[in-house]
Order: sequence, then C-alpha cells, then structure tokens
Amino acid sequence: MTPIFFDHISTTPLDPRVFAAMRPYFTELYGNPSSHIHDQGQEGLKAVDAARSSVAALIGAKPGEIVFTSGATESNNLAVKGAAGASAEKWKHIVATEVEHFSVLNALIPLSNRGYEVTLLPVDTDGKVDPEDVRKAIRSDTLLVSVMHANSEIGTIEPVAEIGRIAKGRGVLFHMDATASAGHLPLDVGEIGADLVTLSAHNFYGPKGTGALYVREGVALESQIDGGFQERGFRAGTENVPGIVGMGAAAAIARDEREGWAAHLRRLEGKLREGVGKTVEHLHFTGHPTDRLPGHVSFWVEFAEGESLLLFLNVHGVMAASGSACSSNLRGHDEEDLVASPVLRAIGVPSDICTGSITFSMGKGNTEGEVDHVLGTLPGIVKRLWEMSPTYLDYQKKKA
Amino acid sequence: MTPIFFDHISTTPLDPRVFAAMRPYFTELYGNPSSHIHDQGQEGLKAVDAARSSVAALIGAKPGEIVFTSGATESNNLAVKGAAGASAEKWKHIVATEVEHFSVLNALIPLSNRGYEVTLLPVDTDGKVDPEDVRKAIRSDTLLVSVMHANSEIGTIEPVAEIGRIAKGRGVLFHMDATASAGHLPLDVGEIGADLVTLSAHNFYGPKGTGALYVREGVALESQIDGGFQERGFRAGTENVPGIVGMGAAAAIARDEREGWAAHLRRLEGKLREGVGKTVEHLHFTGHPTDRLPGHVSFWVEFAEGESLLLFLNVHGVMAASGSACSSNLRGHDEEDLVASPVLRAIGVPSDICTGSITFSMGKGNTEGEVDHVLGTLPGIVKRLWEMSPTYLDYQKKKA
Repeated sequence: MTPIFFDHISTTPLDPRVFAAMRPYFTELYGNPSSHIHDQGQEGLKAVDAARSSVAALIGAKPGEIVFTSGATESNNLAVKGAAGASAEKWKHIVATEVEHFSVLNALIPLSNRGYEVTLLPVDTDGKVDPEDVRKAIRSDTLLVSVMHANSEIGTIEPVAEIGRIAKGRGVLFHMDATASAGHLPLDVGEIGADLVTLSAHNFYGPKGTGALYVREGVALESQIDGGFQERGFRAGTENVPGIVGMGAAAAIARDEREGWAAHLRRLEGKLREGVGKTVEHLHFTGHPTDRLPGHVSFWVEFAEGESLLLFLNVHGVMAASGSACSSNLRGHDEEDLVASPVLRAIGVPSDICTGSITFSMGKGNTEGEVDHVLGTLPGIVKRLWEMSPTYLDYQKKKA
Repeated sequence: MTPIFFDHISTTPLDPRVFAAMRPYFTELYGNPSSHIHDQGQEGLKAVDAARSSVAALIGAKPGEIVFTSGATESNNLAVKGAAGASAEKWKHIVATEVEHFSVLNALIPLSNRGYEVTLLPVDTDGKVDPEDVRKAIRSDTLLVSVMHANSEIGTIEPVAEIGRIAKGRGVLFHMDATASAGHLPLDVGEIGADLVTLSAHNFYGPKGTGALYVREGVALESQIDGGFQERGFRAGTENVPGIVGMGAAAAIARDEREGWAAHLRRLEGKLREGVGKTVEHLHFTGHPTDRLPGHVSFWVEFAEGESLLLFLNVHGVMAASGSACSSNLRGHDEEDLVASPVLRAIGVPSDICTGSITFSMGKGNTEGEVDHVLGTLPGIVKRLWEMSPTYLDYQKKKA
C-alpha cells in the first residue's frame, strides 16, 4: 500500500501544475530581476510581478502590498520585529496569544530584551481567544496585536475579524499569521481588517523556501534583512524567482479550487472524526469542534503517548504529527520538550494523563479509502500501547 | 544567434545536474525535515544533512559549521548583525571596507543607529584593501572585521588570508563575503582563517533562494530569524529542502570541476581583455589586472555611458552588467543613483568623464565564439554612443 500522508500542516506536496510553472525558471529563464536592463533580467522581473499579482488576488490585496520572503517564519519575524522597529519610542507594548507559532513567540523574546512589554492572552478549552480579552489588553502604548488565523496543532479558527475591528478601533496594527489557513479558508484582508498577514507557499501546495508578508499600504516596517532595494526596501536579497513563481501558481490554483478542496476535506474530516470517536476509547478531541481547518482532526488518547502513536502509525504507512512540526524539531534538546506542547497546556489538557496529541491533517489528494485504512489501523495501535502502559494497567485493575 | 549571457556575477543558470538532483524533492520527497518522526520527514532530513556535508567539503569546513539561509544577503546580515548581537556590551566597533556589498554595508546601518561604530577602509586604485590598514583600524573594542573575498563589480580578489591572520592575532572575528568567489576560487576556511563565510548557491550554478553561512565551531551568533530549532538555533524556519539539495549538488560539482572551469574562463578572459583593449579606444580596465575572478573583465569607456552600452549590447544579444546587479535595482529611486557606484568611487574613477562601467562575467558554458561576437559588436556600439555624446564631440574638436 502507498504510504498515507496525513501531515499537511507540516508541509504539502508541490502541486504538479505548480512545478510545471516553476520549471522554466531554473535552467532557461534564470535572470536576476535586478538585472532588468537585459532580456534575462526582464523575464525574471516580469515573472515576479505576475506572481505578486496572483498572491495579492488570493487575499484581496493590491500587488504592491505583497512582500516576498523566504517563508512564514521570516514573515512572522518581519511583521513583529519590523512593526516594533518602525514605531516611535513611546509604543512599547505588544499583544499576542499563548497559542501563537514559535516564530511569533520567539520573535518577541529579543523585543522583550530591548524593553518591549508583551501580553500573551489565554485561550479557552477549544483554543479560541476571546476578542474581549484583546480589547482589555490594549493599552495606550500598544503598537501591535498578533493573532493567528488558525492553529495548525489543534485546528481552531480564531475570531480574527472581530479582533481586527477592535485593533482598528484603537489604532493598533493587527498582524495575522495565516500560515495554516491561507489557500484553505476564505481570507480577505479588507474584511478581516488585518494590516500584516503571514503567508506560506508550502502550506498550500506551493514550494518550500517562499512565503510572503502582506503589508497594508501606508504601514511602516523596519526591514530585517538589509541590502539591495528589492521588495520596495522591506526585504533585500536576490529574489527566489522559481519559488516566487511557484507561490504565484499555487495561489492561483488555490483561488480557483479552494472551495472544492474544503468540501472534500470536510467530508473526510467528518468520517475520520466520527470513526475515531466511535472506535477508540478514552479519546479526547482537541480544538473547536466546528470552527476548524478543513480536513484537520486532532485528539489525544489517555494512557497512549503521542510520539509512540506516531511511530507505530508510520510503521503502518500513516504519517501524522504530534504537536506542531516545529516543536518536535528538538534534536539535541531536552527530551521533556517533546511532549510539553504550549498549545495543549494553553487549552488545559491535563499533563498527568495526556502525553502528547495526534494531529491528522488531510490534503486535497487524500481519499476516503485512506481514511478507512487509518480507521482500521488506529484502534489496534492504541490497544498495543495501552498493553505496554503501566498506568493503563493500573486503571484496568481499579476498574475491575 | 542565441543570446549571450555574460552576466554571471548577477546570477548563473542552474546546472541541469543540479536540477536533476533537486527534482524528486518537489513532488515526491516533500517531507518537512522537522517531521522526522515519519518517513517523508526522514527523507527531507537525510537530504539536508547530505547537502550540509557537501557544502562543508567545498570550503574545508565541518558539516556542523554550515548554516543554511535564504541567500547571501541573509547570510551577510546574519554574520554582521548576529556577531554584534552576541558580543558583550563593551565590543562596539566593526571594521569593513568601502567596497563591500550593500548587504554588508546596509546591515551596518541599524547597528550604527544602536551605538556601534563602523570604520570603512579605503581600497587602492585596483580595489585592494591594504592588510596594514586593517591592522591599524582594529581597536580594543573591535568585534568584527568584514572583508569580501572578491568583488563582483571589478573582480578584484582581496588579501583575505593576511587579513584573517591579523584578525586572529587580535582576537577579532573575521567575516568573509564569498558570494562571488565560492565555487570559483580555492577557498579553505582553515587556510584563510575566516570565522564566518557567506556563500550563495545561485552564484555557482545552484538555485536562487538558498545560501549558507559558515560559522566556525564555538563562534556565538545572535539568530536574526527566530522560531523553531532548525539550523542549530542559528536560523529558524522550515528548510527549503529542494534548494538546499541543489546547493549541495552545486557544491559537489564545483568541487570536482572548479579548476577546469577556471582554466577555461582564464582563456576567455584573456581573449576578451586583450580584444577590447586593442579595439576600443579610451578604455580603462577596472580592478586588479591579474588577482581577479576567472572570466571577469570590467572597464569603463570615456564618453560612453555604462547603462547605454548595456542597452545597446542587449539589443545585439549580449547581456552584461553595470555596477552590481543590486545597485541597478533602484526602480523608483533617484536616477542619479544609477551611475553613482560606490565601488567606482572607491577606486578613484573620475566621475566627470566616467558615467558607469561595464562588467562582463563569463561562465562555464560560454565559448570563444561568443567572445568573438562581443569583440565584433562592442566597438561599433561605442562608436555610436560617442557620436551621440556632446562631450566626445567637444573632445574631437579640441583634438582636431
């Protein structure tokens, strides 16, 4: 059986049509857009401009509001550090949530060290932030509110339009990390009222190494990578032309097909959710039951360690995630960190009986048959893990 | 006739073998290396590790000393800002040269604003910095010396090994920007004594959007892009796996073939240099006559504007550069900037009779026939520009 990829929040396979669009820009049209005085450079420049229009169209922006970056992590850093760097001395406060991605949370650390104050808002047990909490957290010196559109680990969609209205009403910039949602959920920067939006190409069937930051016209940012005058001075460096072309192609495809993907993924999601809910005892779903990323099913199982579940699933040809892909990348770090997901902590999952969660994130290419395979495999794996678990055996004894 | 690309300092065509190596990592082996708990992630991780070894081997480094970035501009920023950020409060001085790339010079600006002092050393008329000047510039609070290996605009190779010895002797970090030289000149980080070295894949037939920073074991750097724990904490963000694989493949090819390329390019360079020297009057070569990048010929012509020469050359199917590619990327900026190359100013080119220089940078795929075509075309273009130049006509009248 072909392995089943249910880990689309970590990355997605490149759409073959995206690859076809990128292909000429490797060995044939290889010009540096800055060398637009000659034909090769002109071709590069035209390609980047076309991709910029396509990415802008995906989110209701103007082409001139799209800044290409090397990915979502760089975009989040540019948004948070760039907004702080461009603000006058008296603006020293930033509001974010406890469930933001590490590339937002860790970008706030050097700012804290330089005298900025950060308020991290809690979320409810479904992982939602309360817009009223945002309103209350905003102070006279608040420069930025940063809240993600949807959480990759537990799937929850945040009330971003309400938060955008509140930020706008108080004259505070609103940054929305749309890494997990762009290309998958409706996203109009005007309707949401976001000033800065992070986009990641490889999360919607585009290439790795390319992302973008939407920067609303008139918003000032301090560039974080200095050099030439690429990207209107917001981001220096020779443009990754094939990557940018790929992001443009992926955005155009997502714009056309997103609704169809979502309908398909909602069906798979419903089937998988219902199936695991019925066949696996002691299972607790995480995230909001309905306001969630399409095709995203996340849960934890009492007495079953998340990482072990993943390893057994992989042996059975099923690839999934525990926590966010980034939090599992702790080679050389303390093993403890592997299970201590800040998101699970934020939604109040009891750490004594939960040792890691599972995230199944399906993509446009997944099928009902694959869901059936997972449903046929998971209960056996859970049972096997329970049989290896001293705490489960204790529980069984007590019950008997 | 097929257009002739003599602008390899701006970028190079991807080697088809590099493309072949990258190809599986787009649509088949698309895993996120951080998701190494499953097979797809493992494949990504293995590929990145193999590329790291290959890039390290190109410059005599250990694999663990290679930090992948999105390109040379990011690497230069990480080196300069990262070294400053990781140094104790009392280290406040940085030495660089007037001919460094914008991604070094402009990265120094925010540091200056934060209280760092920068000494920019002059160069001689060949574009060489005097190592004695470096020695004299180092102060008790100097943290970093940043000098490029070779200059893309005028081709000059700097005395980096001497500078490395001086920096080491004074306990100062030495950063070398090897964007133009890596894969083309011998480069051993041990012999040169560099602590930080910037590498750019697309400058040696690798892909755009991928670079690296060599960070000598034990050297502390403050990360500039924060988030997950990729690249040992020096650089967060999902790895651009196909790009990194391509950089690894390009490094392996360069290691094997660099000497052959250089021999071929020295022949073309000699032929082109001799030819234009003979057939074009009022021509002044720039950069060092022999200590220069292989295949690099740069000059300016009295009474002939550099940008106009490029435009006419392009019409005749010849693509070349004026100044650095980055300095010509000033869309929307003052037209004045187009001709004011800091490098030409630094080597004392008289701005009253020189209005821009030409850089021909040949690559491994160029041929003697292409040099012949350029030699057959250039004199006529120069003559035509002279006939349009009032200052040339004045000069002719005076001479008559």
